[in-house]
Amino acid sequence: MNTIDLTDFGSGTICAVSTPQGRGGIAVIRVSGPQALDIVGRCWQGKSLADMPSHTVHLGHLIDATGDVLDQVVLTIYRAPNSFTGEDVVELACHGSTWIQQQAIQTLIDAGCRHATAGEFTRRAFANGRMDLSQAEAVADVIEAQSRAAHHVAMSQMRGRYSEELKGLRDKLLHFVSLIELELDFSEEDVNFADRGEVTSLAQEIHSLISRLADSYRDGNAIRNGMPVAIVGQTNAGKSTLLNALLRDDRALVSNIHGTTRDTIEDTIVMGGILFRFIDTAGIRQSSDAVERMGIERTWQAIDKANVVLWIVDVTSADTSMSSDILNRCDGKALITVLNKTDLDDDYAARSELNDILPEGTPVVAISAKSEQDIEALSELIVKTATLPNVDSDAVIVTNARHYQALTRARDAISRAIDGINNGLSGDLLDQDIRECLHWLGEITGEITTDNILAEIFSHFCIGK
Amino acid sequence: MNTIDLTDFGSGTICAVSTPQGRGGIAVIRVSGPQALDIVGRCWQGKSLADMPSHTVHLGHLIDATGDVLDQVVLTIYRAPNSFTGEDVVELACHGSTWIQQQAIQTLIDAGCRHATAGEFTRRAFANGRMDLSQAEAVADVIEAQSRAAHHVAMSQMRGRYSEELKGLRDKLLHFVSLIELELDFSEEDVNFADRGEVTSLAQEIHSLISRLADSYRDGNAIRNGMPVAIVGQTNAGKSTLLNALLRDDRALVSNIHGTTRDTIEDTIVMGGILFRFIDTAGIRQSSDAVERMGIERTWQAIDKANVVLWIVDVTSADTSMSSDILNRCDGKALITVLNKTDLDDDYAARSELNDILPEGTPVVAISAKSEQDIEALSELIVKTATLPNVDSDAVIVTNARHYQALTRARDAISRAIDGINNGLSGDLLDQDIRECLHWLGEITGEITTDNILAEIFSHFCIGK
Repeated sequence: MNTIDLTDFGSGTICAVSTPQGRGGIAVIRVSGPQALDIVGRCWQGKSLADMPSHTVHLGHLIDATGDVLDQVVLTIYRAPNSFTGEDVVELACHGSTWIQQQAIQTLIDAGCRHATAGEFTRRAFANGRMDLSQAEAVADVIEAQSRAAHHVAMSQMRGRYSEELKGLRDKLLHFVSLIELELDFSEEDVNFADRGEVTSLAQEIHSLISRLADSYRDGNAIRNGMPVAIVGQTNAGKSTLLNALLRDDRALVSNIHGTTRDTIEDTIVMGGILFRFIDTAGIRQSSDAVERMGIERTWQAIDKANVVLWIVDVTSADTSMSSDILNRCDGKALITVLNKTDLDDDYAARSELNDILPEGTPVVAISAKSEQDIEALSELIVKTATLPNVDSDAVIVTNARHYQALTRARDAISRAIDGINNGLSGDLLDQDIRECLHWLGEITGEITTDNILAEIFSHFCIGK
Repeated sequence: MNTIDLTDFGSGTICAVSTPQGRGGIAVIRVSGPQALDIVGRCWQGKSLADMPSHTVHLGHLIDATGDVLDQVVLTIYRAPNSFTGEDVVELACHGSTWIQQQAIQTLIDAGCRHATAGEFTRRAFANGRMDLSQAEAVADVIEAQSRAAHHVAMSQMRGRYSEELKGLRDKLLHFVSLIELELDFSEEDVNFADRGEVTSLAQEIHSLISRLADSYRDGNAIRNGMPVAIVGQTNAGKSTLLNALLRDDRALVSNIHGTTRDTIEDTIVMGGILFRFIDTAGIRQSSDAVERMGIERTWQAIDKANVVLWIVDVTSADTSMSSDILNRCDGKALITVLNKTDLDDDYAARSELNDILPEGTPVVAISAKSEQDIEALSELIVKTATLPNVDSDAVIVTNARHYQALTRARDAISRAIDGINNGLSGDLLDQDIRECLHWLGEITGEITTDNILAEIFSHFCIGK
């Protein structure tokens, strides 16, 4: 672990198309670096850029290497440090033909630019102190956000609410350190017992703040990556048909994620402003087949990870042999019982074996997945059942797995410190735990980081941002 | 026909995403109209926009109807008439999340904007005299351009070269009118024979200028819509396999156009900087089947329209029964003979019936379409054979079918005027032809137009331009 080397991730002046891929009315090409004005000036026919002040807009022509007019463009100048990256930035708004975009990038590269790597503009903004690492990561989250909740949490992080919270924690930890060091300075004297009271309460306050952040990740992950909804039931209950019906029912299908395993299929969809991640699982039955049992084991794990479980029951067979196993595993989850294949059996409501197994106090909905009957009612029920924290409150919600990991490590360190205090550990040993706690929090904001971590973070960005 | 009614195509303040669809680093939303600054001001947290000068850039926040921060945005102000549309324009560069783009448009609409129709920004630029109609049409062509040649011609038109040429023609026609009217004024006296010499030579000059423009459409259409290459030959010669091989060979496949008829399949591809439109045709043979004969008739028409003909000969059958019919029809076209299925027959070169039918002085290339042998050599030959005019010269090239139609009508009118002069027609009858000629040229630049024509033209634009 080192503090970041600002020169290591590439220098020079970079360029990229920052607008979405494809053809449109206009496209924006961003150029950033010490030579941005010089390089663009070489491809520019219009007023001299050298003396133009920051935040001004100029109409002119982009000229290719042969001297041909490539396009009429609107150019905006941002002078360092008052730009997104903190460097000199020139943005060129050209016509949104794919041909012009390609040629313009080629022209800028010929004139001395380098094509930007993924996230390099944001990485420079971080390196130049325009934002901390958690804010830089939030830029990508803002762009990826598919729902109101995900957008709100990412915006709050990008605007620095999370950074403020971490800064508050850091201040408390530094105060803690100063108290410990006071004890070390006076260790010959008998001051330790008097101070330990304040030290203990401060440590517990820090522990509870870090815990709240770490615990918010369960919701944060659901907000960012989709609230996990496991579709479970016995074999042939119609789980896959239901998945298709749920996804077809809503036009806002946003992606297809094939599970890492053969047996679990995931798909995300936005319903009622919430991103859901439906997980279709292997049917559960007693099986002596080793491969099938592995699939069933994954189904149990899917239930454990889910916030909501859809328990599908085939009303025509009403095989209840595994019901209690399934229901026991769903303990503490939001459970919705889905009676399926109602189109094939009018009398299901009268069947006692069905009524006997239905869990009390949880919602039940009858559908036909195949004929898509009452799927909308089920969708509405899922939205109603899925409780997310109020993202409009000021409470910070952690959405990033890297942050969650750092927070759990920070919590472990502060827990050790609390144990140490209780066990009368000496101040210099406590000091070590607190410094480790500070270290993990510093990894989140990027005060302490490595090039590998940075490379990993920014590789997930789009080019041009 | 009326002069354009500026109020008819919609008023108010309009907004649209101007950058390509989808997710990217940033997206640009354009707002244009008398209320642009007011409406954006209502959704804006930042410096007051009211007093900001034109061509300035401001960082602030876009606020939705609930008062939530939707995004941090960079806002650029263009004050009328110094904007693309000639109206007050505000451009908002926001983060390129699809969610933010949707919400931002929704917010602007809630604040009083109307969503722009296709091409409405450019239509306003035309209505406000920022460009004539041929320049406005060129904006769409610039965005659509897929090859250097198409881009060059569209840029030249957008920058007004074509308009200048038409203005020159118009001046000549007005001079013509003044000469005719001079004759009318002095019609009692004996001045007409003296002036008819100058009148005739001016009419012929105008005719030749209009003819040059109209004739350039053949090349212009090839540049813009793709140089037509007909793939013809007897049945089972391997024409469709060749089409697939040609398209697979080059990664730059740009679109799939299914013909209006069952039998003709077209596909465009850029090779060597030229857009080609390959037309796969029905095989030619003597047939008594009525439907097949209709397909064959279309093949003959495809040859007539093509700039280049690929004549495919199956070396294994070397059925030459229709060869002379095909070759006669290709008279005057760039012809390439393609000997196909060479992988199945090593000895084809020795066959006299093949050598007898090969047309003299035209290129011959031997390939195997199925095993994709020597396809690249064929592609290179096609590029070499396809001669396009030198687009780098200043000569105007007409690429637009609407312009071509107006030019041919203008040419008819000036032809009638020339006939009239030769036949001693009276000045007031000549005047009528000249005014018709002026009318058709005015339709190109939009001085004379109808709402229907305008609606048709701008409906082909993308939203946001």
